[in-house]
Amino acid sequence: MDRLRVGVVGASGYSGSIAARLVAAHPRLALAFATSDKWADDTLESHLIVRLEKGAGAAARFVANASALEHAKDCDAVLLATSAQVSMGLLPAFAELGKQVIDFSGAFRLDASAYPRWYGFEHTAPAWLSRAHYGLPEVFGPAPRAGVVANPGCYPTAAILPLAPLLRERLIEPLGIVIDAKSGVSGAGKRSTEEYSFGEIDNDFRAYKLFGHQHSPEITRALDRVAPGVTLTFTPHLLPLHRGLFATCYARPLPGATAERVAQCLADAYAQSPFVRPVAPDDVMLKRVAGTNLCLVAATANDDVVIALGALDNLVKGAAGQAVQNLNAMNGWDEALGLDALQPFSA
Amino acid sequence: MDRLRVGVVGASGYSGSIAARLVAAHPRLALAFATSDKWADDTLESHLIVRLEKGAGAAARFVANASALEHAKDCDAVLLATSAQVSMGLLPAFAELGKQVIDFSGAFRLDASAYPRWYGFEHTAPAWLSRAHYGLPEVFGPAPRAGVVANPGCYPTAAILPLAPLLRERLIEPLGIVIDAKSGVSGAGKRSTEEYSFGEIDNDFRAYKLFGHQHSPEITRALDRVAPGVTLTFTPHLLPLHRGLFATCYARPLPGATAERVAQCLADAYAQSPFVRPVAPDDVMLKRVAGTNLCLVAATANDDVVIALGALDNLVKGAAGQAVQNLNAMNGWDEALGLDALQPFSA
Amino acid sequence: MDRLRVGVVGASGYSGSIAARLVAAHPRLALAFATSDKWADDTLESHLIVRLEKGAGAAARFVANASALEHAKDCDAVLLATSAQVSMGLLPAFAELGKQVIDFSGAFRLDASAYPRWYGFEHTAPAWLSRAHYGLPEVFGPAPRAGVVANPGCYPTAAILPLAPLLRERLIEPLGIVIDAKSGVSGAGKRSTEEYSFGEIDNDFRAYKLFGHQHSPEITRALDRVAPGVTLTFTPHLLPLHRGLFATCYARPLPGATAERVAQCLADAYAQSPFVRPVAPDDVMLKRVAGTNLCLVAATANDDVVIALGALDNLVKGAAGQAVQNLNAMNGWDEALGLDALQPFSA
Amino acid sequence: MDRLRVGVVGASGYSGSIAARLVAAHPRLALAFATSDKWADDTLESHLIVRLEKGAGAAARFVANASALEHAKDCDAVLLATSAQVSMGLLPAFAELGKQVIDFSGAFRLDASAYPRWYGFEHTAPAWLSRAHYGLPEVFGPAPRAGVVANPGCYPTAAILPLAPLLRERLIEPLGIVIDAKSGVSGAGKRSTEEYSFGEIDNDFRAYKLFGHQHSPEITRALDRVAPGVTLTFTPHLLPLHRGLFATCYARPLPGATAERVAQCLADAYAQSPFVRPVAPDDVMLKRVAGTNLCLVAATANDDVVIALGALDNLVKGAAGQAVQNLNAMNGWDEALGLDALQPFSA
Repeated sequence: MDRLRVGVVGASGYSGSIAARLVAAHPRLALAFATSDKWADDTLESHLIVRLEKGAGAAARFVANASALEHAKDCDAVLLATSAQVSMGLLPAFAELGKQVIDFSGAFRLDASAYPRWYGFEHTAPAWLSRAHYGLPEVFGPAPRAGVVANPGCYPTAAILPLAPLLRERLIEPLGIVIDAKSGVSGAGKRSTEEYSFGEIDNDFRAYKLFGHQHSPEITRALDRVAPGVTLTFTPHLLPLHRGLFATCYARPLPGATAERVAQCLADAYAQSPFVRPVAPDDVMLKRVAGTNLCLVAATANDDVVIALGALDNLVKGAAGQAVQNLNAMNGWDEALGLDALQPFSA
Repeated sequence: MDRLRVGVVGASGYSGSIAARLVAAHPRLALAFATSDKWADDTLESHLIVRLEKGAGAAARFVANASALEHAKDCDAVLLATSAQVSMGLLPAFAELGKQVIDFSGAFRLDASAYPRWYGFEHTAPAWLSRAHYGLPEVFGPAPRAGVVANPGCYPTAAILPLAPLLRERLIEPLGIVIDAKSGVSGAGKRSTEEYSFGEIDNDFRAYKLFGHQHSPEITRALDRVAPGVTLTFTPHLLPLHRGLFATCYARPLPGATAERVAQCLADAYAQSPFVRPVAPDDVMLKRVAGTNLCLVAATANDDVVIALGALDNLVKGAAGQAVQNLNAMNGWDEALGLDALQPFSA
Repeated sequence: MDRLRVGVVGASGYSGSIAARLVAAHPRLALAFATSDKWADDTLESHLIVRLEKGAGAAARFVANASALEHAKDCDAVLLATSAQVSMGLLPAFAELGKQVIDFSGAFRLDASAYPRWYGFEHTAPAWLSRAHYGLPEVFGPAPRAGVVANPGCYPTAAILPLAPLLRERLIEPLGIVIDAKSGVSGAGKRSTEEYSFGEIDNDFRAYKLFGHQHSPEITRALDRVAPGVTLTFTPHLLPLHRGLFATCYARPLPGATAERVAQCLADAYAQSPFVRPVAPDDVMLKRVAGTNLCLVAATANDDVVIALGALDNLVKGAAGQAVQNLNAMNGWDEALGLDALQPFSA
Repeated sequence: MDRLRVGVVGASGYSGSIAARLVAAHPRLALAFATSDKWADDTLESHLIVRLEKGAGAAARFVANASALEHAKDCDAVLLATSAQVSMGLLPAFAELGKQVIDFSGAFRLDASAYPRWYGFEHTAPAWLSRAHYGLPEVFGPAPRAGVVANPGCYPTAAILPLAPLLRERLIEPLGIVIDAKSGVSGAGKRSTEEYSFGEIDNDFRAYKLFGHQHSPEITRALDRVAPGVTLTFTPHLLPLHRGLFATCYARPLPGATAERVAQCLADAYAQSPFVRPVAPDDVMLKRVAGTNLCLVAATANDDVVIALGALDNLVKGAAGQAVQNLNAMNGWDEALGLDALQPFSA
């Protein structure tokens, strides 16, 4: 059986290096190349991929980021673990060469008009915005085989998965949703600032970017496809841990939204999903998902409010794992291929 | 100058041991006795109170909890770092002997009718409920000198301090407030269960007691004194850190509630307060308060929502420090006495 | 290709649950049964094994510990993640039924005479002590196919791997070795005591069991097989993290033991090993091994001392991963089978 | 009673900011000025000194580092929380103006000839090396009132305190001591590198600077004053926590060095010390000292080895607290003044 050859661009970041390891260990993928300026010319094994397929050849060492497109001929698909501005150039370039592309950044998740405000730049490839499939397979299905995927953000994945079924079943009002979310520090990528040094993060907790986080319009846009008229307040916070993201969502109940009914709604929506697990609210715990591609979800309600919870590993289900899941889905394979051996770190 | 002699009941718990150290180091207090079954007969110094006043005598060693009342004759005031059921008996007993009493538990913070549901017992001293002063001095002033104090809970302190001025100034609707709160693990006290073992908490984060936490009616009752008609949803979460508590509060804006106005409202309310510090939302950080008696607060708004933040050390401003502050206030001293040398641990 | 059917006894402990997941995801193993009193009758999937082989049948739910032997007929091999006293009974029972047995405990790692002092009991199956293969494959090779394995302790694995080649090549004196070791808290298993609660471990570090840890005679006995006359001082410490173990070893240099030579000695010894990686001393880091079956080792020297370092995940290379590696080795398979997809959690 | 006016140079670093707070809260000191480029012109209160003495005047805001000497006229003493190269210039300048100087850096702790190798520069003020008192009061007494103090390093303090009495009493051999030490991350100061980012430190542990740490000659030099002929191996490691330092020391026993005798030796040596507490080895814990000026020490022995332990807060007894203790001692005050109200953060 031939393996799909996959290149990873930006393989020394947190999600990029996980992506490279997932590709290397996947039964139907082969790591075609991995780029990193920091690790250029180092062997892949020195950065802890235990073993590569025999004859991996070109993949034995990291190559420079700038050479990514030169290696396009060696690959069938590419994972872009790059910044939004870099992805904005690379996605069209790889796609026009006929490659499957999964982009980890926010470059293809919004409407063109939203980029100046939320990302600080004009979009230079607006034609691709409508062609990019928003890759949350449990809600929006697989991308077409010859497609390009905007891999969802970590916060959006954790919030949309518990909220979308409730909106679809008209159990909550689209108006005035509150999403209070808490993320591990790796969500910010590898950082070289005093602000992200150990001494400043350990024993700390804080909110940031109130009313101003770029995942706010992304969540709104995705949920609005499920139930028109969504408005929401999204507040991200920084947890003193490396990996894991937790979303606590509050919405006004619509008639019939009892505690039993909202829980059943999630149970039904994800009964066949290998990765989204409806559980009781007290069982939504980061330790059960960190290290895996799982997302735990729960919902409950009283007369005043529906509370919906989501928890995932921001680097896996919130990035690299979801990218591989998208690759699996668009190639018609079992979505869990290469992802079901991942183990939680603390459970 | 004679020192006020203070006994501490339950001095081996997290907040009790901090209380004992604060009393021992306070310029106008002397530690009369400290009870602990676990540490009974150990010297106080062996549990790290660096130095006691000369001639501390009785205070040199911990005594058994059951002997607390026998030591009443040695003290002018008593701090009860005990469970609600124990406090329910001890507060009246000490008060009837004419002692100033500060109770750390929830035993005197609600109406009698609320105890079966929220605390699981019938209240046996309901007459004292109305006599106990709810000891949040910045909002409700000092207790009378010959009084007893229900020291507020940690979550209530962090939520009420940012919300009360906004309610009082009619900048937010009393109806439908959401309080999403996150506490360090010490809020649960010293625990001997697998659930609270290091391996189960480290790298984890989760919500608990949805719709069922006993601080929910306490916050409602206190805020209702400020603006009648308060209803709220309170969701506590468990942070993977030892000390610190953060409340993110969402409310509907009333006319005039601009970002500037709500920030100014907090600035005005706490301009003279030694411990409550209005800052920008991004500066509300646990690391700046953990170890101190400070509470950082902030508020901001857009057309849809007012967000108010509060951060404090659950063992200090949320327990032992606030107790000493209450003692200071009811004795007519500077509220900050014995509390202003406390240092943040991580800033 | 038929899979070897493997039972896991004690599958709700930290190393037992990892063992069960490794077996379930292994290409040549099938999980025959998993015992746990705590989780009896729960589905395996509810405790986060993402997917079981089709038709797993008996393995779909945890069974009670006491029923382990009844399930012997369903399995070809068994992993005992049990206490030394339980293993002392189970290993002979399963072995006499012709099963391959890998025991995680210390029950078969010492001479019979050592058990009263170091484990507090008389050994009841002394005949099996000499038959049990000490399962450190990189130093002592694979067990015979029809064998039983005493899976090494976590501290011994981290200390023996860097020291054994230096002793074998006569680069260090066997006399007076110092092993200063630091372990994550999971080394103590799941605990329900105040001592191991989050608040008591977080921000703490301490030594324990000076001169009295049961891994001391285990390390001595194993190294003594490599170079007779070993004496050593072993001091374990407790790190405020969940998984990971680091050994810093000090020995007197023998003639020729330069920095280059001791480093080369480790490089040569482990050139073909998939899991033991000789690196520079500064690169021996827990974050690179936690979550994987790797052990990083290093050695350096000056005129006075040789320093040898070892780092591993105490639950994987120090327990469950090494057990699977031993199973692989005794069945004649690639030692890395089912272990090379494990990813580090923090690198 | 007039307060001694103290300036703090470098008050935004971890130890400098603690020093400024200790001075501000000290009953016989007043904060004359505090320098910081990062915080220049910010109020001291904004960085969490709860309250300054009335009329603090110049001290109300941070001033630029370069202006330190201009403020000399306002102070009687100065604490230098600066790098070795900056201290090398400032200490003589302030001393020649007749100020008491306590230097936190290593600039005045070694012989001139050692600086090129261990600090990478030629010493430009060698005459001051012999005049600077090595400020470990429990071992070397107070500095003269008109003196300058080289405040010891954090690792040296933790190693010398348990070892010095054993050397003095000839219970251990001076030759071949091993010091295996572990420090919290704040020992490296505030950092802006990826290496010290949260994601790279959390869940990690490693050794660094084997045979090459500048505290190695400092410890040797200090212990050699106690017992000539000391040689030692010093290995520092990095703990995944903010504050705290632990030294495990191994030495060969001399005749008579029983477990009882070595423990008694420490008990006798520190019976009158307010800060150095001899305890049992299992009670030497970081959580009991972090946040305080205490150093816990212990010693035990068997026939082969003496083990001596020391634990302290590297920012307090290892830096800012010891500096204030030195100021107290050289001014003839109680050594514990202004230091005995500090509370441990986790005990």
